[in-house]
Amino acid sequence: MFTLTSPSLSVHSLSRSGLSAAKLLKEKGLSPVVLEARDRVGGRTFTVRNEQTKYVDLGGAYIGPTQNRILRLAKEYGVETYKVNEEERLVHYVKGKSYPFRGSFPPMWNPFALMDYNNLWRKMDEMGSEIPREAPWRAPHAEEWDKMTMKQLFDKICWTNSARRFATLFVNVNVTSEPHEVSALWFLWYVKQCGGTMRIFSTTNGGQERKFVGGSSQISECMAKELGECVKMESPVYRIDQTGDMVEVETLNKETYRAKYVIVATAPGLNLKMHFNPELPPLRNQLIHRVPMGSVIKCMVYYRENFWRKKGYCGTMVIEEEEAPISLTLDDTKPDGTVPAIMGFILARKCRKLCELTREERKLCITNPQPSLAQPVHYEEKNWCEEEYSGGCYTAYFPPGILTQYGKVIRKPVGRLYFAGTETATEWSGYMEGAVQAGERAAREIMCMMGRIPQNQIWQTETLTNVDLTLFPPLPFVTTFWERNLPSVGGFINFLGVASVLSVATTAGLLAYKKGLLTRS
Amino acid sequence: MFTLTSPSLSVHSLSRSGLSAAKLLKEKGLSPVVLEARDRVGGRTFTVRNEQTKYVDLGGAYIGPTQNRILRLAKEYGVETYKVNEEERLVHYVKGKSYPFRGSFPPMWNPFALMDYNNLWRKMDEMGSEIPREAPWRAPHAEEWDKMTMKQLFDKICWTNSARRFATLFVNVNVTSEPHEVSALWFLWYVKQCGGTMRIFSTTNGGQERKFVGGSSQISECMAKELGECVKMESPVYRIDQTGDMVEVETLNKETYRAKYVIVATAPGLNLKMHFNPELPPLRNQLIHRVPMGSVIKCMVYYRENFWRKKGYCGTMVIEEEEAPISLTLDDTKPDGTVPAIMGFILARKCRKLCELTREERKLCITNPQPSLAQPVHYEEKNWCEEEYSGGCYTAYFPPGILTQYGKVIRKPVGRLYFAGTETATEWSGYMEGAVQAGERAAREIMCMMGRIPQNQIWQTETLTNVDLTLFPPLPFVTTFWERNLPSVGGFINFLGVASVLSVATTAGLLAYKKGLLTRS
Repeated sequence: MFTLTSPSLSVHSLSRSGLSAAKLLKEKGLSPVVLEARDRVGGRTFTVRNEQTKYVDLGGAYIGPTQNRILRLAKEYGVETYKVNEEERLVHYVKGKSYPFRGSFPPMWNPFALMDYNNLWRKMDEMGSEIPREAPWRAPHAEEWDKMTMKQLFDKICWTNSARRFATLFVNVNVTSEPHEVSALWFLWYVKQCGGTMRIFSTTNGGQERKFVGGSSQISECMAKELGECVKMESPVYRIDQTGDMVEVETLNKETYRAKYVIVATAPGLNLKMHFNPELPPLRNQLIHRVPMGSVIKCMVYYRENFWRKKGYCGTMVIEEEEAPISLTLDDTKPDGTVPAIMGFILARKCRKLCELTREERKLCITNPQPSLAQPVHYEEKNWCEEEYSGGCYTAYFPPGILTQYGKVIRKPVGRLYFAGTETATEWSGYMEGAVQAGERAAREIMCMMGRIPQNQIWQTETLTNVDLTLFPPLPFVTTFWERNLPSVGGFINFLGVASVLSVATTAGLLAYKKGLLTRS
Repeated sequence: MFTLTSPSLSVHSLSRSGLSAAKLLKEKGLSPVVLEARDRVGGRTFTVRNEQTKYVDLGGAYIGPTQNRILRLAKEYGVETYKVNEEERLVHYVKGKSYPFRGSFPPMWNPFALMDYNNLWRKMDEMGSEIPREAPWRAPHAEEWDKMTMKQLFDKICWTNSARRFATLFVNVNVTSEPHEVSALWFLWYVKQCGGTMRIFSTTNGGQERKFVGGSSQISECMAKELGECVKMESPVYRIDQTGDMVEVETLNKETYRAKYVIVATAPGLNLKMHFNPELPPLRNQLIHRVPMGSVIKCMVYYRENFWRKKGYCGTMVIEEEEAPISLTLDDTKPDGTVPAIMGFILARKCRKLCELTREERKLCITNPQPSLAQPVHYEEKNWCEEEYSGGCYTAYFPPGILTQYGKVIRKPVGRLYFAGTETATEWSGYMEGAVQAGERAAREIMCMMGRIPQNQIWQTETLTNVDLTLFPPLPFVTTFWERNLPSVGGFINFLGVASVLSVATTAGLLAYKKGLLTRS
């Protein structure tokens, strides 16, 4: 039995969100306790060190410009970043062929496909601009968009199969789930709060620009070290009792903690691992059953040499083949060129298909179809679907109808319980950055309750120093005249309709094609 | 510390599914222990006794023909049933007007609406007939239908707003969720395994035909009494450890049980209340985050007299007004005519809107708009959204994409853990009947593992004796020539297209209407 003297704070952490909260609270003179379910800190980040890899990030790894909070922490602890290799050409695999390219998105050669692609990204960003990042349920079209899945929206926006197929991959890669599983409102919000379609998907100048030298868990490890004894490992919380003067928290290893306030810093669905007294209010009680985690297996294949660079490829592959287990790869070679490796994601439907195989079977699935490539010398993987205390990765998704009905309670305190975790963030929610934002916000909510800071200081923006800004410049994505003004396929057809009689036939043909009338029974 | 001698079985029960399992096991000479989270048995059934009501079912209450297992248990314990009053006329409220009617579904006077309604039910039953009740993920169109929400399917099938609006109510009433929240495959399966659209929605000859004299919890109470000391109340399980010779189960009240096998008889999502060692396999670990419970508040309003019957109404109201909190009412007067009462459901979106009000505020919402009616003398309600150990009611629903990807593991044993609960049933899943089917099936799975019965005896059908059959005849729903052969609106238009030039205009108008082109911006 372990009892804390007041004033104390208990933080049930499954992520760096909990550590960020505790760090801030400790700096302000409070005495938090962090209860960590696992035998390690870091949550959905997980750096493993071994001889073959030196170090490898089996979980969250990528950071990029505008992620200022995580960059601030990295700087504080002296953790360096390096750029993910994107020097050489990227490759787009589709319909059995490979197309090398440069830039964030594979280019389109078919003019219809080009218009359609261009319109797709433009439309998503346009819709996103209507959605308040802190309250997506208040968007002007919230109800309408939340009743739609992303698949429905794509079917509405896209005229060509190639745009629709790539749009599916875009959802798979960004939120490890399928377009038909997620609410359109939620996904548009998610992309928006990451800075838009270009920022979220890009390596250079985007969410995947950099990695940490030495691995991403170092930040959590440094925070845990700084917090010292007050971080209790292997302490999954199973009971939270708010009926007494102090909140009572019990852990599986049979310890009881008492605190004035508790921050629950887990993914929303993992609140269910705890038995609450009194019960949670109805909306929260139902919300936490409604926001599942995505499905992903992260795989790293190691080679004797960096043969792809020699052939003029950077290691990024965007793979649209239904039979390929991996949908996206990135170069995972160390910044000094040692330990040549390719990282690949098995995502969503493909992940569910392969997630009950053994590690060896999956390794075969991934490496077998490449007999021409050099033989791998080592393999690492992490199946996040099997983690009881994550439930999946990278983040929780909202199925249709949930964000408008339950979203508003996602970070609403319940008595003396406050909620952190990257899902409660409003900038880069789903990322390490969001975890830090959420943890620090929850900490400030408690400081505000204690009368230490005014209410208007709970939410804080984060700006970089001038020096850091030159290192991590948040370059705007400049759109070209054509990107802004190229018509959509629909718009183009309207134009044709005005311009030429011939267009009637084209229109009819394309409309029939779009509506699937020619193929449906 | 409480340790059981082997051979024993532990059943973690949040429902009568657990009790049904334990009852069967005990009858076969085994020694089960039932660990019940609450201070009462019955799970989602909950009979309250008090002076004002005599008794009232705040949870599951209705039974009907083809629910043979629950009828068998009722007979065994001498619990009588009575018919829900449907003698007088029902009422359909829509667009501010009320229309008395007789039969299961409100009739349609507009010929387009009639064709559309008729086609809707016919089409849903037709699609349902393709879906195997024990493996809906194997339906020929499983993938396609699972990618669609019920809203999408209704938008495809229905031509008229009145059909679409009623279809929404049909989903609300049957599964306490919204058409845009549920997978079409799952909902079609759900209706099918209840016997079709007529069986599931009807009072007479359907799922709501009867109630138990004295309340539905009696069955669970009788089973618990028969099981005696081995039913442990207020014992929520928070830890299940399968790493040793025996499965070890710990409860919040700090008791440890050891058993050879465990039946987890909770709704799938409530598996999350337990910490598993070893962790659950990936697909089950993710499934249990993906199947939320519906949203319902059950309300009973009591009156001095049965004024509706005197006016020629039976008490059934089908209410399609967006502003009305209640969507469906049924007479809840006792079979001897005492304690006049109306039962009403607040469902899905309306439930989320009202579920954080106080009981008194809700009472006002429900009873205020009826100043002309007699003043209520008593009010009872149960907000199932607030129950930690139910998560909602009546049952779990599958959002789009989940049934095909995760459905197959819903009752797949995990080591020595077996799964019951009405969600794992294949006949009347979601109902008391399904709970019994599931519990008994899980019990037989264990008996099979123990070598006491062969594999082909695990699944058993249930037939009534001839005497009971005359009491509870499962009358087929006979469709009329017109119900079978009336065209759909689309089919009718095609016919017109052949018959008349005038129809071109009609077709264009209706198509534009259906596609929403005339109203959309």
